[in-house]
Amino acid sequence: MREAYRSDLRHLVEDLVEMLDLVRSGLVDASTALLEGDLALAERVIAADSHIDDDQMQIDEKMIELLARQGPVASDLRLLVAGLRMSSTIERMGDLAAHIAIVARRSHPQLGVPERHREEFQRLGELALGAVTSSAKVISDNDLALAAQVEKDDDELDSLQSEIYRSIARNDDYSSAEVMNLTLLARYYERIGDHAVSLVRRVGFLVTGDTLDSRGALGDPDEE
Amino acid sequence: MREAYRSDLRHLVEDLVEMLDLVRSGLVDASTALLEGDLALAERVIAADSHIDDDQMQIDEKMIELLARQGPVASDLRLLVAGLRMSSTIERMGDLAAHIAIVARRSHPQLGVPERHREEFQRLGELALGAVTSSAKVISDNDLALAAQVEKDDDELDSLQSEIYRSIARNDDYSSAEVMNLTLLARYYERIGDHAVSLVRRVGFLVTGDTLDSRGALGDPDEE
Repeated sequence: MREAYRSDLRHLVEDLVEMLDLVRSGLVDASTALLEGDLALAERVIAADSHIDDDQMQIDEKMIELLARQGPVASDLRLLVAGLRMSSTIERMGDLAAHIAIVARRSHPQLGVPERHREEFQRLGELALGAVTSSAKVISDNDLALAAQVEKDDDELDSLQSEIYRSIARNDDYSSAEVMNLTLLARYYERIGDHAVSLVRRVGFLVTGDTLDSRGALGDPDEE
Repeated sequence: MREAYRSDLRHLVEDLVEMLDLVRSGLVDASTALLEGDLALAERVIAADSHIDDDQMQIDEKMIELLARQGPVASDLRLLVAGLRMSSTIERMGDLAAHIAIVARRSHPQLGVPERHREEFQRLGELALGAVTSSAKVISDNDLALAAQVEKDDDELDSLQSEIYRSIARNDDYSSAEVMNLTLLARYYERIGDHAVSLVRRVGFLVTGDTLDSRGALGDPDEE
């Protein structure tokens, strides 16, 4: 029985990593759909998001059952509570990838990102993808050195978002629709990075008992 | 002991409602700061957000302690799991109110919302506030009739956001900086409404065991 329980807890971690893997694929495809104007691919990302939602519901049910059946305390309880938080966070990351695809679809047959911002958005996509991929490895291997890399990717995402915002604000030859799309897109990518940070901070807390930031916040880094 | 436990569960609900009350004040002040260009008020909202974050951490610790001490099952367990979700949601609503105040601060000494959109943003603020206030009552009184009102406020928020986006996209005399601010502001208000809906759906699930939407989703209404 105890053996089965330990194996259930290990499975839970694998389930979260698999959910993140779906987010990773969705994000890769959303970025491609956006930069290449691929409508069919955008539609697929949008449709596939419901699988991530379903996964979350299933994983949550498993965790609630473990809480009910095992009445865990101490570190196992913390793990399950963190797991419940992480599944919501990952589900939200999937939504954000779908939102990027929705902008690609709305812009079609135009590209959602004008040529002169293409490189910046390609870089936003790479940084967000790096943060998602690394956060999955942090969760599966408790690799806290890699957690620092996720924080670094997120800092770079934040700076790049601010830089894009400043460059758009300086420039008045965009149409309002273009500005709206660019504003939202940069925010979606940056939020994916925030969520990745929140995932690795939870792992850090589980492993060391310490929060990784000075405020002791395990919350969302999207704060002043 | 059992009596103390029931009282702890009741307190938990009160704590969540108090957190929402801080969000409500923050939102009222953020909307005023935005529409009146009140810099000092904007600063106060931004600074006060950390109280909501602290509240969340305290409430979460209480819930984790209850899980550890009581090993609850069935409906008590569902309540605690929902409580953990709701505290994150409310904390996020506080962040969004602070984000509105940050736009007010960034725009100062200009107003963040140009005169011709003033009424629309006033209405966005009212709808978001209505959703927050009603969701607190749904949580404290299990008032599911009022939950329907929160869904209605949120639908109206969504339509108004789309209308504002269309009207901005049609209009090319705004500066890029203005379009960016309006785009983000409308999104922040609309997200507050989404979070209120997610709160009342959780209450609905606790009370009836049924999810309120056809997809069975308890997740975020910010989805396709």
